[in-house]
Amino acid sequence: MQRFDYFTSKGNHSPMSMSPYFAQAEALDAANPLAPARQLFDLPSDQRYFLGNSLGPLTHSAREAVNQAVNAEWKTGLVRTWHDGDWFDIATETGNRIAHIIGAPSGSVIAGDSTSVALFKVLSAAAQKNATPTRNVLLCDINNFPTDRYVARSVADLFHLQYKECAVSEMITHFNENVAVATASMIDFRSAEIHDVASVTAAAHAAGALVVWDLAHAAGVIPCDVERHSIDFAVGCGYKYMNGGPGAPAFMYVAPHLVNEVQQPIPGWFGHDAPFAFEDAYRPAQGTARFSSGTTNILSMKALHGALEVFEKFPISSIRDGSIALGDFFIAGFDEHLSASGFTLGSPRNSTARGGHIALLHDRAEELTEELIGDGFIVDFRPPNVIRIALSPLFLRFNDIAALVGRLSDAT
Amino acid sequence: MQRFDYFTSKGNHSPMSMSPYFAQAEALDAANPLAPARQLFDLPSDQRYFLGNSLGPLTHSAREAVNQAVNAEWKTGLVRTWHDGDWFDIATETGNRIAHIIGAPSGSVIAGDSTSVALFKVLSAAAQKNATPTRNVLLCDINNFPTDRYVARSVADLFHLQYKECAVSEMITHFNENVAVATASMIDFRSAEIHDVASVTAAAHAAGALVVWDLAHAAGVIPCDVERHSIDFAVGCGYKYMNGGPGAPAFMYVAPHLVNEVQQPIPGWFGHDAPFAFEDAYRPAQGTARFSSGTTNILSMKALHGALEVFEKFPISSIRDGSIALGDFFIAGFDEHLSASGFTLGSPRNSTARGGHIALLHDRAEELTEELIGDGFIVDFRPPNVIRIALSPLFLRFNDIAALVGRLSDAT
Repeated sequence: MQRFDYFTSKGNHSPMSMSPYFAQAEALDAANPLAPARQLFDLPSDQRYFLGNSLGPLTHSAREAVNQAVNAEWKTGLVRTWHDGDWFDIATETGNRIAHIIGAPSGSVIAGDSTSVALFKVLSAAAQKNATPTRNVLLCDINNFPTDRYVARSVADLFHLQYKECAVSEMITHFNENVAVATASMIDFRSAEIHDVASVTAAAHAAGALVVWDLAHAAGVIPCDVERHSIDFAVGCGYKYMNGGPGAPAFMYVAPHLVNEVQQPIPGWFGHDAPFAFEDAYRPAQGTARFSSGTTNILSMKALHGALEVFEKFPISSIRDGSIALGDFFIAGFDEHLSASGFTLGSPRNSTARGGHIALLHDRAEELTEELIGDGFIVDFRPPNVIRIALSPLFLRFNDIAALVGRLSDAT
Repeated sequence: MQRFDYFTSKGNHSPMSMSPYFAQAEALDAANPLAPARQLFDLPSDQRYFLGNSLGPLTHSAREAVNQAVNAEWKTGLVRTWHDGDWFDIATETGNRIAHIIGAPSGSVIAGDSTSVALFKVLSAAAQKNATPTRNVLLCDINNFPTDRYVARSVADLFHLQYKECAVSEMITHFNENVAVATASMIDFRSAEIHDVASVTAAAHAAGALVVWDLAHAAGVIPCDVERHSIDFAVGCGYKYMNGGPGAPAFMYVAPHLVNEVQQPIPGWFGHDAPFAFEDAYRPAQGTARFSSGTTNILSMKALHGALEVFEKFPISSIRDGSIALGDFFIAGFDEHLSASGFTLGSPRNSTARGGHIALLHDRAEELTEELIGDGFIVDFRPPNVIRIALSPLFLRFNDIAALVGRLSDAT
């Protein structure tokens, strides 16, 4: 397609000036150990897709899982699939696949609900566990995703806690005997900065506080090391780097040493110790299953469960390596071809501090985003001046990055 | 198939003794105005399915909606479908289809979450709206579905209310100046008794209380007359008579005169007045959209939205007529062929007091249920002695009822 053919295009810049960059992309693609993963996706032919952080693309395994759920389990098995099939366990099984990806022990993660509902549940559980009349502050990352801040404020109101916000980098200085719970995102949704999860968590614990981490922009693209960092609670999103499909279920992690001592406020039969006994009183299940409420959205859950098969074949460490390589390659292109054209880098240059996407800043970011999308380069805009470019190494090629840099260099 | 052929079978009873009943079934099927609806379903060939109250069967329109969502909207549209497609509005559009079925005004219903999460939200909203230091009782139907009771107790704890239970029939005598909120099911999940929604709601209002009705066993099989009965809040289930698929989204109704004065405790971007503005503070949307939280489970929601097409073709009043006719026909068969064999009727004989299913009581109910299922008669068991038989008139035939009565008459 002509519009992708930047190697020979006649843009504002000499076409030859980009040829070494494209040649390098070709060499990197040829040597890329993740290249075979692209075949597991059913990608649209007319797009280069840089929004794996927003909605991961369709995998063949997700489609097959949905087909099976609709045309065999629902159609033929009908209600008996609850007993004969895996519907009752699918939230736990999906949780186990996620646990594998985020560095958590098997059985410690349950999938379900939306990220907002999941965050509400774990924040409420943490508040109920740890708040006292004097330990009465809920501390939230001021740069957190807006809806996380809304939920945190609501939980603070419900549990009569003071709601305070600060940057994650300042949290350590805010922990004291008054802080019950803190919550933050592991990776900033705008800048992709990776926060110092281990230090913040350790400082919280030293002060007697619990921390809830949102892994939305981390799970599936970096190893979150949940167990190694002694994380208390975490939530995350199924439809971003985990490719679970539009509005895929979220997930909840609770540390095994805590889980049977906490309770969440929305009891349901999926979280009951004996779901089919119809007991008069609620008895929460042992383990993270107690964070389930009502019936699992089977069709959406099956898509997520199917999509996660990809991660059984490609370990998260190699995915992280691939994402860093794509990011470094983009930054090299930025330095050579974009830095003089009004673009600045809004993400850490140092790959160890940078998550799965890159924020590219420009005064005309919103307008440029529209132009890029019109040309099949699917990125997104975040106010006030951010173009977000997700580096999903399971399906993106270095050639996609080179083409994007070429298109951006023509844009201004 | 031999096991369905009760008209000529050699059971314990003379085969001829049932022939008038089967002949009557044939005549009723021939005259049934709902008979064409069966073609809208993709039913398994080896089952007679009496659990439309537990998991409604697959419709062709639901399958097509899921196919479209996976293979066009997700695969090709990808994240742009949020802007170009109907994903953002699908929870409202699905809510509007449900509103049509339950007798509520357009715009007053939103689909999403599970029934337990939905009940938690509306009960919390009602409690927050109406509770005071002296109006501090949450009253719950003691025969309510167990998980509704768990949620109600949890909401009472969160809002520092006294939790009390009584039968729905006694609620009217319990309403006084101390009751903030009451909650009950419109139709009893065991007996199918229809509660007197209008009288209970009116008595609550006279005492200054609000009522949350669970329509789980009502929506899609009887006209719930939500607006006519001046219902304050309601929730219901998408996977029962509405055939939305396993774990389909639930729904929430809030009376238009109340909705903008209440708030639910789980704010999310789908409930925000300006979802894409990423504002620092939560501003709830006008109308029932404020009861949404996180991203809609698109695949599950699409299945429900597709399944509800059936109700655009067959009005709920005719569905109710069909369900009553099936129930009356079953009871006629019961009187003649089952009442002397250890079975008793656990549901109202009077069709105006009976919902969409029939509870058949027997000392060996659990064992009989297993035998029936083994023979392709799909019913379920509820402790201690209930065989539940749902009368979904959109796909069941009078012949199915006759065959079931025949099989039951052979069972003892």
